Amino acid sequence: MAFGGILGFDNGIVLAPMGPDVAGPKLVAAVANAGGIGLLVSPVNSYDMTVKAITETRKLTDKPFGAGILLEFDNTRTVQAIFDEKLACMQVYWGDFTKEMVDEAHKHGVKILHQIGSLKDAEKAIAAGVDCIIVQGVEAGGHIIGTVGLIALLPRVVDLVGDREIAVVAAGSIADPRGYVAALSLGAHGICMGTRFVATKESYANHYYKQQLLHYTEADTDRTDLYNRATWRSPVRCLNTPFHQQWKNAPESVENNEEQPIVSYSIIHGEETVLRRFAGQVANPTTAGELENMVMYAGQGVGLIKEILPAGDVVKNFIEGAKEIIKGLGDKYLGTNQA
Amino acid sequence: MAFGGILGFDNGIVLAPMGPDVAGPKLVAAVANAGGIGLLVSPVNSYDMTVKAITETRKLTDKPFGAGILLEFDNTRTVQAIFDEKLACMQVYWGDFTKEMVDEAHKHGVKILHQIGSLKDAEKAIAAGVDCIIVQGVEAGGHIIGTVGLIALLPRVVDLVGDREIAVVAAGSIADPRGYVAALSLGAHGICMGTRFVATKESYANHYYKQQLLHYTEADTDRTDLYNRATWRSPVRCLNTPFHQQWKNAPESVENNEEQPIVSYSIIHGEETVLRRFAGQVANPTTAGELENMVMYAGQGVGLIKEILPAGDVVKNFIEGAKEIIKGLGDKYLGTNQA
Repeated sequence: MAFGGILGFDNGIVLAPMGPDVAGPKLVAAVANAGGIGLLVSPVNSYDMTVKAITETRKLTDKPFGAGILLEFDNTRTVQAIFDEKLACMQVYWGDFTKEMVDEAHKHGVKILHQIGSLKDAEKAIAAGVDCIIVQGVEAGGHIIGTVGLIALLPRVVDLVGDREIAVVAAGSIADPRGYVAALSLGAHGICMGTRFVATKESYANHYYKQQLLHYTEADTDRTDLYNRATWRSPVRCLNTPFHQQWKNAPESVENNEEQPIVSYSIIHGEETVLRRFAGQVANPTTAGELENMVMYAGQGVGLIKEILPAGDVVKNFIEGAKEIIKGLGDKYLGTNQA
Repeated sequence: MAFGGILGFDNGIVLAPMGPDVAGPKLVAAVANAGGIGLLVSPVNSYDMTVKAITETRKLTDKPFGAGILLEFDNTRTVQAIFDEKLACMQVYWGDFTKEMVDEAHKHGVKILHQIGSLKDAEKAIAAGVDCIIVQGVEAGGHIIGTVGLIALLPRVVDLVGDREIAVVAAGSIADPRGYVAALSLGAHGICMGTRFVATKESYANHYYKQQLLHYTEADTDRTDLYNRATWRSPVRCLNTPFHQQWKNAPESVENNEEQPIVSYSIIHGEETVLRRFAGQVANPTTAGELENMVMYAGQGVGLIKEILPAGDVVKNFIEGAKEIIKGLGDKYLGTNQA
């Protein structure tokens, strides 16, 4: 099944490290077993929890995998665990990751994938010596750092990278093999997917959230900074649910603070957590409460998602589908099969 | 040079009918001569001016071409001229075009291309029996009717069209051959371009505006409804120039009315026109005045445009480039050339 491998992996399909614990051991192992690049979502700045998630993942796969960290927060301990455990790679997002930090990662044998949303941040990542740049378009779900569409931004980053040994991965609303080949056409070497992988059997998202993904379309997402405001004001893309529609125009002063009613209880990374209205965490299988009144992240590719599949099947379907499309393009436009 | 022809044309590269007179006879003829689908921008509801533009175009090409009309305004007389002159096709945008209207066009031998920005409007276009649906992503320049990225919307429309005999054309930030192949990968049969064709020798845009397109990037456009408000409140994408930055947050009540200072004078479709601040018309070669204080429409693909080219070269480069990319995908991912 090897096809388009990057960074030493069998293929170039990357699992976005989705929080709070959606991209957990089961999902990461399923993607890794299919030859893709599974990225564990990291607990914030916790050595022990990070090691625990890595250990659990290793029980489920012998393949290499990685983890993602947010540069917005202090994650010194999490990074140390990733280095000590010698993961294959680490995805970094939402902040600067300097040459010194890349060099330190490389000393531990950890490759760096930096997710960016602008040419300016791609320039910084190149200067820092990263191994891979994940180009995120504004169509993406969850946190979106940029404002430009993937189809416009991706070829610009590809040109900037030039013939350097840096893999370029496309992220944002890719949800079927057509998007994969579109990304390859634009010059990417691989793709990174979030929403498509939430809607898998192994994702640690609540069944209700997974089901909603099957009912909403590209017309039904919203870019907003309503959630999680108490800790981190940042734009995300989520489903435009009745709950979201009711609150999306709330004043800037509205925060996810203790005045907000409790909407649910979850166990996140093994810890009991109270979630109030406008919390940034999506529901996992342990969540009890008003599931319909919780944020549900999704990219504009959500309209293309029709079923919950095993994550390994997603990877397999994308590779087989991509091959067919590439063959079809040759047949149709180059007359490969013509006499 | 025939490659991927649609609707009876040699290829599937469509010139957006850009106003007020940018997509004039010279540009349309250049695209037509290269085998593409040139679409004249139509004067609003004027039989004589429309016939004049068609006649001028026919002096420059023996190839078929079409014209675009806005459904927002009464264009009965313009449509009559297009029918009487038996143009090959008519692009319609920004409103409903019913089955009766499509049937009437077909009686005159005129094929209908309906540009849409949502799945809902694609459904209506299919029901009306159009010959072609142009799927416009929100990355596009000029008037943008939808809110969804091309990469998410296009495959959805392709699925909706299914095996019907309707050509699907992709529009929005496509500015080099990589975007063309990406669109084909997503299921489109052709592409429609605006910004790339503004930056051609034959476009009837002012030299200053053309030059600005070479200096701005994907990070420097804005979606706004500031311009043209007196007649038509609608979102457009334009360059985020110093002038635009100064005024973009003007109150909703601000209109392009007689209280606004005059910024320039233009001859548009042969008529002397006074343009005030916040006018929706871009500068053409006759424009005298504060060129830097006029709106300049552009899509997010503007960062990919590096030079002013003859329009025929643009078409030729796109076809040659697309062939190379498709061949490259086969070589790289199917091992076409491997022993």
